[in-house]
Amino acid sequence: MKDLKKYIRDIPGFPKPGIIFKDITTLLKEGKAFKESIDMLASELEGKKAQVVLSVESRGFIFGAALAYKLGLGIVPIRKPGKLPHEKHTITYDLEYGKDALEMHKDAFKKGDKVLIVDDLLATGGTTRAVIDLVEKMGGEIAGIAFLIELLPLKGREKLKGYPVYSIIKDEYC
Amino acid sequence: MKDLKKYIRDIPGFPKPGIIFKDITTLLKEGKAFKESIDMLASELEGKKAQVVLSVESRGFIFGAALAYKLGLGIVPIRKPGKLPHEKHTITYDLEYGKDALEMHKDAFKKGDKVLIVDDLLATGGTTRAVIDLVEKMGGEIAGIAFLIELLPLKGREKLKGYPVYSIIKDEYC
Repeated sequence: MKDLKKYIRDIPGFPKPGIIFKDITTLLKEGKAFKESIDMLASELEGKKAQVVLSVESRGFIFGAALAYKLGLGIVPIRKPGKLPHEKHTITYDLEYGKDALEMHKDAFKKGDKVLIVDDLLATGGTTRAVIDLVEKMGGEIAGIAFLIELLPLKGREKLKGYPVYSIIKDEYC
Repeated sequence: MKDLKKYIRDIPGFPKPGIIFKDITTLLKEGKAFKESIDMLASELEGKKAQVVLSVESRGFIFGAALAYKLGLGIVPIRKPGKLPHEKHTITYDLEYGKDALEMHKDAFKKGDKVLIVDDLLATGGTTRAVIDLVEKMGGEIAGIAFLIELLPLKGREKLKGYPVYSIIKDEYC
């Protein structure tokens, strides 16, 4: 069960023409493949002495939460604006056209804490880069960053230079 | 660590006046409390011989995914319209004012499969009831339904009569 790539379904033309969407629901619904993917991510991130896992809404929650459970850590949800009820920081970041924003509670972790960032997909790296910047502004330390899938042609890893980045499925097509 | 209720933060007036929002981020970020909540849910649901866990976007993913990992099952995301890329069923259901909709892939599980439904909060039970109806229309069998928090005054359990429903934090105030 090392070839997890075969569980990913390519959907050409979604959500718009010219894009090949990576459908992970075909991996998620297979208990053994899902467990294997979490165990592989965990083996990269254990021993990092982190306090919490940070994950971005919504698919990120699936991997972040299972991984946090496996590692015995807390899970911090980073959400779309207006969803979190308490005092929060807002991250804005550039998209291809326009801007997007995410929010994280101010008490998500303590100054000096080590944090892990976990998401399903590393594409251009823009969202993850914005999360890193916010974590560091809040006095946190990035102990590791892990993705289920890395879309190699988009070179997202270059935006995350200097940080320990892991991915378990490397994909040439997107 | 049996009193998980103390990790839930009440936020009066969010998202609108008159509502006391149950903020679970204060439980999620504590590794031990999060692990305990998942282990308690798992102890209710293990032995149900289910194939997959179904969870509704977004907070539901956090509990559904960790539980699926713990039980060695697949996790099926039920999402807001337009997010899932393949052939899907749509569930529409009534809100206090108006309607809402959710989608699930047609190949999420096989006819005859046993499924678990997991979410963070049982309020009026409207969303869960809609998910049950769709699962049964697709030929699935509900093996168990579990929530982190049950808001007792809203009597959501009455809408789920006849199904095995579990909750680990029962709250009198909402």
